[in-house]
Amino acid sequence: MIETPYLLFLGDAPDQLSAKVAQGIRDWRPENAVGQFRMDGCNATVGLQDMTLEEAQAAGAKTLVIGVANRGGTISASWRNVLIRALEMGYDVASGLHNLLRDAPDLVQAAHTAGRSLHDVRIPSEPYPIASGVKRTGKRVLAVGTDCSAGKMYTALALDAAMRERGMKCTFRATGQTGILITGSGVPLDAVIADFMAGSIEHLTPDNDPDHWDIIEGQGSLFHVSYSGVSLALIHGGQPDALIICHEPTRRHMRGLPGYTLPSMELVRDTALQMAHVANPDCKVVGVSINTQHLSEAEAKVYCAETEARLGLPTVDPFRHGADRLAEALAAL
Amino acid sequence: MIETPYLLFLGDAPDQLSAKVAQGIRDWRPENAVGQFRMDGCNATVGLQDMTLEEAQAAGAKTLVIGVANRGGTISASWRNVLIRALEMGYDVASGLHNLLRDAPDLVQAAHTAGRSLHDVRIPSEPYPIASGVKRTGKRVLAVGTDCSAGKMYTALALDAAMRERGMKCTFRATGQTGILITGSGVPLDAVIADFMAGSIEHLTPDNDPDHWDIIEGQGSLFHVSYSGVSLALIHGGQPDALIICHEPTRRHMRGLPGYTLPSMELVRDTALQMAHVANPDCKVVGVSINTQHLSEAEAKVYCAETEARLGLPTVDPFRHGADRLAEALAAL
Repeated sequence: MIETPYLLFLGDAPDQLSAKVAQGIRDWRPENAVGQFRMDGCNATVGLQDMTLEEAQAAGAKTLVIGVANRGGTISASWRNVLIRALEMGYDVASGLHNLLRDAPDLVQAAHTAGRSLHDVRIPSEPYPIASGVKRTGKRVLAVGTDCSAGKMYTALALDAAMRERGMKCTFRATGQTGILITGSGVPLDAVIADFMAGSIEHLTPDNDPDHWDIIEGQGSLFHVSYSGVSLALIHGGQPDALIICHEPTRRHMRGLPGYTLPSMELVRDTALQMAHVANPDCKVVGVSINTQHLSEAEAKVYCAETEARLGLPTVDPFRHGADRLAEALAAL
Repeated sequence: MIETPYLLFLGDAPDQLSAKVAQGIRDWRPENAVGQFRMDGCNATVGLQDMTLEEAQAAGAKTLVIGVANRGGTISASWRNVLIRALEMGYDVASGLHNLLRDAPDLVQAAHTAGRSLHDVRIPSEPYPIASGVKRTGKRVLAVGTDCSAGKMYTALALDAAMRERGMKCTFRATGQTGILITGSGVPLDAVIADFMAGSIEHLTPDNDPDHWDIIEGQGSLFHVSYSGVSLALIHGGQPDALIICHEPTRRHMRGLPGYTLPSMELVRDTALQMAHVANPDCKVVGVSINTQHLSEAEAKVYCAETEARLGLPTVDPFRHGADRLAEALAAL
């Protein structure tokens, strides 16, 4: 659990795209951020007030979150100075970078001296159990993709917003680094030991009120040979009551796998549902989320309408059309 | 890679069953063991000559392999003395125990001083890549189960023996602790980080001669909610050309999961084959292996015959009937 609110560290971000994590926090949990911290040469902004460490602390910030991808894979000397000063002032520091905070001796020393925490969200922070398969109370919805990076996290976060809007009880459950930083907690599933994958998802989505929905962020795809095991562990550990199919229609091949074509949405629907029925015989596919970022407005409309007619399921691009129809489908379950 | 041949350490094994690992080595790779080492109170034997550390070393033994499950989860003081003396004499020590050799400071010290290795085969010994999905040369067969502990390792080892007997080129590829100790190498798949599962199996079964078969030890089951992700990673990382269905017909529920019934062999066949076709469109299911240990001779015969008629696939209990018909099916592919 990362303490909120945050000060978002943008460092010397070379461009807007490199500040994706900070932007995600700004978009989905604005209440989690009091401001942004930028250094000389920063070419990104997430539209929050620029603050010094002192100003943000006065505004209540507890954790400095690295909201930017670093250049060259190392934490530069100029970043380090800021992070160490933040620790000395009483901030925790959180990061989803590949190179870990805990591997930098000066940061470890500063955190130790100040009695503060370094959160490396790429690494599990606790041991997980082996999955028991015992039926849990409350409801769960899981995003499953035809491919990796098809919009599963975005879909889950948009659904979370739409369900809250309707007054439904729900919790977004992060399973990847960005999602964990956005919400402050979750399971970094891709870094979990094989035997404990499904158990980590059971742990993430415990018993809850009968009318409460856990919205579980999906990972990978049952049809992506590099990561399919992770996707199946999500289906079996999550015991979903509902699945949402996520698809990006312009991919020529599976991400990172030239020569591997994408499965049809129908095949993903049938396969994911069959596997979901092992853990929850009542699971249903309730909707489709299309990532239409590479289509025109008109093309997107046609593609969603055709998909909806073909699959007989509410089909939207949550970014363009909102996720309300998906929330409605869950409410109707 | 663990250096062979071994001296098999049976310690103070309380009963024969606790010496399962040593028995597996004796059954499947007798050429890997020069003898057995027993202490006072040992109630097991694997039928090899009892030897002192000195005698075994004179006979060529390089590694002392702990072939027994330890009592109470700790490495006792009496074991420790033997292990330390072995290290001092120039043995490596290998273990598949839950409590690791490397966590015992006196063993680490002794190994360091003697310049010898401690092999904890529960823990991966090298970093694995992310799976690329690139088609590899050579052929692969994978055992898939309706449940965990259905006889997949036994089937693979029996198949390996039957294929060698026929003069076929093949290699047993271990994916669990016992298999790794039996053959001296492999991937402890249940301990691999999620993102690298399929990649570890690609690494384990590299390019080979066109007529060479890797016989991949299966793990878990696509229908076992605790471990299904591991099973799917084996299918997608292994790119099998052939699958063998493994089944234990007297199970009332999935192992460790009361309330979860077993899938039919037909369902496992169809589901595993569909998933295998993602990585290798030419994959075929070639046979069925029934673990009939809880059936009488007559019952076993009837059960196998009925299964064979129903599924239209060669069906044997490799323990009772040998695996030759499965080897034949692979040769005919």
